[in-house]
Amino acid sequence: MEKLERIPTKQDIIETYEAIAEMIHYTPMMMSESLNQISGAELFFKCENFQKIGAFKMRGAASAAIRLTDKELENGLVTHSSGNHAQAVARAAQLLGVPAYIVMPENAPSIKVEATQGYGAEIIFCKNVEDREPTVRAVVERTGATFIHPYNDYNVIAGQATCAMELLQDVEELDVIMAPVGGGGLLSGTALSTRYWSPSTKVIGAEPDIVNDAWRAMQSGQIESNTSTDTIADGLRTNLGEKTFDIIRQHVDDIITVSEEAIIEAMKLVWERMKIIIEPSCAVPLAAVLQNKERFEGEKVGIILTGGNVDLKKLPF
Amino acid sequence: MEKLERIPTKQDIIETYEAIAEMIHYTPMMMSESLNQISGAELFFKCENFQKIGAFKMRGAASAAIRLTDKELENGLVTHSSGNHAQAVARAAQLLGVPAYIVMPENAPSIKVEATQGYGAEIIFCKNVEDREPTVRAVVERTGATFIHPYNDYNVIAGQATCAMELLQDVEELDVIMAPVGGGGLLSGTALSTRYWSPSTKVIGAEPDIVNDAWRAMQSGQIESNTSTDTIADGLRTNLGEKTFDIIRQHVDDIITVSEEAIIEAMKLVWERMKIIIEPSCAVPLAAVLQNKERFEGEKVGIILTGGNVDLKKLPF
Repeated sequence: MEKLERIPTKQDIIETYEAIAEMIHYTPMMMSESLNQISGAELFFKCENFQKIGAFKMRGAASAAIRLTDKELENGLVTHSSGNHAQAVARAAQLLGVPAYIVMPENAPSIKVEATQGYGAEIIFCKNVEDREPTVRAVVERTGATFIHPYNDYNVIAGQATCAMELLQDVEELDVIMAPVGGGGLLSGTALSTRYWSPSTKVIGAEPDIVNDAWRAMQSGQIESNTSTDTIADGLRTNLGEKTFDIIRQHVDDIITVSEEAIIEAMKLVWERMKIIIEPSCAVPLAAVLQNKERFEGEKVGIILTGGNVDLKKLPF
Repeated sequence: MEKLERIPTKQDIIETYEAIAEMIHYTPMMMSESLNQISGAELFFKCENFQKIGAFKMRGAASAAIRLTDKELENGLVTHSSGNHAQAVARAAQLLGVPAYIVMPENAPSIKVEATQGYGAEIIFCKNVEDREPTVRAVVERTGATFIHPYNDYNVIAGQATCAMELLQDVEELDVIMAPVGGGGLLSGTALSTRYWSPSTKVIGAEPDIVNDAWRAMQSGQIESNTSTDTIADGLRTNLGEKTFDIIRQHVDDIITVSEEAIIEAMKLVWERMKIIIEPSCAVPLAAVLQNKERFEGEKVGIILTGGNVDLKKLPF
């Protein structure tokens, strides 16, 4: 399968989906009467917390990995991440029978380190963010492994796009589809699938007030960075990349930002009412709906619940 | 619809199912690769935590309520419960447009009180267990409401039986089906449906060591009581009733008891691996499998996850 060097087409996404089907779950869509009542909208939740490794990141990692040549693959995969992308790359490598090397900061939560090791990966610690890329380069030199970027890669974006593709197959005529935005891999993939399969559906990204770089980038027309990353939504601390921003600028209708309190409240509501476990990052789009009820009143809103990997010992409520 | 004065037949359960279909959810069945790996068995989880009011109790309450005559129904429903049965009766009354009166101990957790009030019920507090039945009688005298027993009632049992009926439709040829046992409403209903729809499937109940009255009752041939009820599995503190014990004695193959630590560990595993929220009581059958791995090795085991109503502020891990 050829590597994508362009914005994924509809056909690219379909082919990606067929190629990764064995490596991922078709995740269920859930509804909640009580959250419909609270929000005033009709909400359709795409449950990527039930995805393999507990997050949508499995789609993008699988999509990138299966496109590597035998030669690129044989020495394994490497990435830097302390989050779900780490587990996704580790699991993809395991499924393809090659080694995985994951660069993580020294202060990464032990639960994330252990989960990634659980998929057979070797963890290489780096001191800080500046040290991250040199450490990856050193791993590549030592092992010959191939780097998989967490989001700024069309192959990864095509994988993440399969999530909205599934949701748009399950639910017709959504008024809005929402995804959280960090590096923008999921949001850009969601925007592409929506344009291809349901062009009249609005695409809205949601992010914490504290890391509102995507919102500012939409205003300024250029990639913005964040001065603080101190949000509970740990999956959304990253900036957009060029490739993801390019797609988002063209195909995303709006970005809504929300407070930390609203994120925690929305997360708790999902746990209590839907009886499912979601990460704080996941709760950001629902928080955006609940903070803007009049805007979404009576609308059919698709929300991608991105993942469920939380440390049960450190809950915010 | 006629009230059941006998052990529910297959036809009774089918008719019950059709009659309550509008009031309940057909709940999903979930599997988990990682729990299969950990247990060595093939596990099929029936997710009653996604049931209306967050627990299977909705089935039994609906089944009992819809069989009442207009005259019995018009003054509303009354029960005593501080748990899921309270919410189930409240919700059933709400759906049928009649009042609900729920007798709860003064020290009932405020989260349960509020949830039950949320379904429009009036809460009447009683001082202690001895005061419970007189309080119910006083409510009946004052209001004319009709009492719905939490488990020792064939109409309730027929409702709970619809849960295993659904699971046995979804999964063929289970070797074992397991349910937790408190008062025995769910276990006796499960046993009946299993005998009717999959007679070769073994039926096993699971309960905490601390409240092992069902296990002792199976040995002694008579209903036993518990000296302590200090288990985290708060849904399983009750003794069997005559009607439930009669069915369990005939149709249940075994009762397995488990430690408190095993319950907490099993609950945590479900939260972490399946990303769903279950109550401690739910985790008891999985704990029984994990404590007896050789016994269940390679078997297809159906497990009813009974409910997901937990106080997120008081987690045991």
